[in-house]
Amino acid sequence: MPGIGPRTAQRLALHLLRQPEEKIKTFSNALLNARSQIGYCKNCFHLTSNDICEICKNNDRNKALICVVSDSRDLLALERTREYKGLYHVLGGLISPMEGISPEMLHISQLVQRVTQTETNEVILALTPSVEGDTTSLYLARLLKPFVKVTRIAYGLPVGSELEYADEVTLTRALEGRTDIE
Amino acid sequence: MPGIGPRTAQRLALHLLRQPEEKIKTFSNALLNARSQIGYCKNCFHLTSNDICEICKNNDRNKALICVVSDSRDLLALERTREYKGLYHVLGGLISPMEGISPEMLHISQLVQRVTQTETNEVILALTPSVEGDTTSLYLARLLKPFVKVTRIAYGLPVGSELEYADEVTLTRALEGRTDIE
Repeated sequence: MPGIGPRTAQRLALHLLRQPEEKIKTFSNALLNARSQIGYCKNCFHLTSNDICEICKNNDRNKALICVVSDSRDLLALERTREYKGLYHVLGGLISPMEGISPEMLHISQLVQRVTQTETNEVILALTPSVEGDTTSLYLARLLKPFVKVTRIAYGLPVGSELEYADEVTLTRALEGRTDIE
Repeated sequence: MPGIGPRTAQRLALHLLRQPEEKIKTFSNALLNARSQIGYCKNCFHLTSNDICEICKNNDRNKALICVVSDSRDLLALERTREYKGLYHVLGGLISPMEGISPEMLHISQLVQRVTQTETNEVILALTPSVEGDTTSLYLARLLKPFVKVTRIAYGLPVGSELEYADEVTLTRALEGRTDIE
């Protein structure tokens, strides 16, 4: 399991062996249930125990706004801001010729379908500022622009950082991405 | 001196005492010369040994573009990108009521003078994304907007970072600051 080396594994294993059998049964069942009951939302591909996830179901959210993320962890990070009130679309990865991930392996056709079949005003691409993120953003932008307004989140100085210690690429992006001040 | 604690200070002092007297004289003179010869550029307040700094003198640079920074360290960080080809204006700090730094204590009047007396197309505010930086940016924007286009550098995800690990404030700024994709 990620982040668990041999020593931690041994500690966890010994801890589990020391538990009463009843507790271990509950734990095993919880794992089995989680695995069998949690699937992907048919609309946005976020994790859910239903057909459609809580976010897609929520009528208080702006259904004309779709934020595209690489995976559910990024979706959860954006949810923590409590600022975004639209829907999401989870791609399930980023295009990466190096790792053999092509566009067909991601939920891209479903995104195009959503955009063309529902009333969508804007698609926000919230992908990591990396080669794969940029490639995927460009690919999606070219695909979606005939149908909808496409934007991407800002790349630049993180809040609380010092200009002095920012790397050159980030500073260059921050300069290029400068915006009119309101 | 910043970053030098008692132990390092002792190490440096003992090292200096071990040097031949001639070497120490050269070092002292270098310090004295630096202190007496290096001053501020009369135009942009960057450090220089002349009246006007090398950047302001350079005819290859775009004189209609002024990038406003807090101090010379930030200017040097931007120069390292090799992307920016305009001039600078060093404020000498940021407005901070907490630390008792008011606008009059910074090189703001000189900036207004530069903008109004030279042909300037755009002022880029490149201040840190902090309370002081934002306060100063807003103050400058209000002051300069009657005369010139005012922009600020982008705040958002730094290049190479993961969305998942970004703090909420940065993510919120990145969402708010989203831009149309070209």
